[in-house]
Amino acid sequence: MTTSREVRLKSRPVGLPVADNFEVATVTLPDPGPGEVQVRNTWMTVDPYMRGRMNDVKSYSPPFALGEVMQGGAVGEVIASNDAGFQVGDLVQSNYGWREAYNAQASMVQKLDTFGLPPQAFLGVAGMPGMTAYAGLLRIAALKEGDVVFVSAASGAVGSVVCQIAKIKGHKVIGSAGGPEKVKFLKEELGVDVAIDYKATPDLMKALEEAAPEGIDVYFENVGGEHLEAALNSARPFGRFALCGMISMYNATTPPPGPRNIAQAVGKQLRMEGFIVSSHYDMLPSFHKD
Amino acid sequence: MTTSREVRLKSRPVGLPVADNFEVATVTLPDPGPGEVQVRNTWMTVDPYMRGRMNDVKSYSPPFALGEVMQGGAVGEVIASNDAGFQVGDLVQSNYGWREAYNAQASMVQKLDTFGLPPQAFLGVAGMPGMTAYAGLLRIAALKEGDVVFVSAASGAVGSVVCQIAKIKGHKVIGSAGGPEKVKFLKEELGVDVAIDYKATPDLMKALEEAAPEGIDVYFENVGGEHLEAALNSARPFGRFALCGMISMYNATTPPPGPRNIAQAVGKQLRMEGFIVSSHYDMLPSFHKD
Repeated sequence: MTTSREVRLKSRPVGLPVADNFEVATVTLPDPGPGEVQVRNTWMTVDPYMRGRMNDVKSYSPPFALGEVMQGGAVGEVIASNDAGFQVGDLVQSNYGWREAYNAQASMVQKLDTFGLPPQAFLGVAGMPGMTAYAGLLRIAALKEGDVVFVSAASGAVGSVVCQIAKIKGHKVIGSAGGPEKVKFLKEELGVDVAIDYKATPDLMKALEEAAPEGIDVYFENVGGEHLEAALNSARPFGRFALCGMISMYNATTPPPGPRNIAQAVGKQLRMEGFIVSSHYDMLPSFHKD
Repeated sequence: MTTSREVRLKSRPVGLPVADNFEVATVTLPDPGPGEVQVRNTWMTVDPYMRGRMNDVKSYSPPFALGEVMQGGAVGEVIASNDAGFQVGDLVQSNYGWREAYNAQASMVQKLDTFGLPPQAFLGVAGMPGMTAYAGLLRIAALKEGDVVFVSAASGAVGSVVCQIAKIKGHKVIGSAGGPEKVKFLKEELGVDVAIDYKATPDLMKALEEAAPEGIDVYFENVGGEHLEAALNSARPFGRFALCGMISMYNATTPPPGPRNIAQAVGKQLRMEGFIVSSHYDMLPSFHKD
């Protein structure tokens, strides 16, 4: 008999989520039924998009239900199988995060070939966030030779991959993150050309002007707010913005101010395009190949 | 000897331009020099983009110079020619607006074949504004079958053409304009499906929701501000916004509020693209053919 602790959404957060919005419960799992597998998670991921799902509003993912266990990406190991396709010991990927173990229909989990990478990489650089970076930078922002690239939340799961892809391809990359440790990571690990500590910068617009006096061509948007205004201000004609997320707005309880200089998008002929990685999984083979 | 009155920019307007920002001067034109023509204007146009050129800021068009005659689209008739390519009586188009007559190098004016249309149409529906509507709707917004189209400043030179093209192609069209006369024009002359009088509507967002309960696919942006917010709110997934202008911001003296709901562009995977007609003159032959 397997017991599992799981994290449930107890109440919908207003503003920043607090521990009291969640509760931990212990459940007992029966043996897997016909066509089911039992999996013990080894890794799970917490991603920014989950904050949106804690609200009770219509969006591209349905809201999390109150009283139910949170969902999310996870990697685990099959510990019991009642399906011919899976054996004990198989490594699998699923959307059954936020719990130690679970039973599921075999069709709801995917066997994971790690290509020699650590399994948890498939929740990050080799998984959804990495794929998001890849699709956003190469397809949505249509990165092309000579582009100067600006990335917000550049030390995050998605942003850090954007920085690395752009650096590998030989671009000038400006990354923004909050705090000296993240900035150090940007400079020393990711090798960006300029790292901006937006928390230490009184005027982000001016900081970006100085980081890219020649202007920027691509903006990979994870933050919104002042970051978007600074990017609009520094954009060169025909700049392309991949709108991946706007973290700065996720915990807002009143409508946050929009970019006051959005009219620059007209004169500079900018393209701003929002995207969700699930619309671009046709790029997965080329992503894994790259 | 020809005399001509001309309108000069006397001072740069702050906020809404007033008559005192301009002065009218009378000049005497010499006979046209070698390779020059002398033209008497019969029509000139006043366009929203001119407001931007009254400011001393860098943009896609250089600012108007103080003390100099204003420029802008005009149609006129050659009244004297010192160039073999032009004869007295030729109809020409030029950028020498805001004056009754002028001398110019022959290369600076274009002979106008009206295809049977009234000459002034080439300052509107058959000219730059019409071409703007055509390029913005068909190329930038990539209008496709079944799209629901929302147009702001729908009774204007550009917006009215957008409405007509979309109606001719069989789309549901919602137009917004200010005041009962403009709304009457939208309904009776342009035949839009729903006309919104934004000046009489306390809640534009709600008005658009009611006009298009199914949502909108294309937004042709001439206004900015609340119009852009309403369009973001009503956009269906993969909606496309052609950002042609943001009139509401042109006379602003402080940074106007940006769209507070721009984060919806991510979840709905919207594309917003600014454009300037001069980048799309390769479409001119197909525009005139259509």
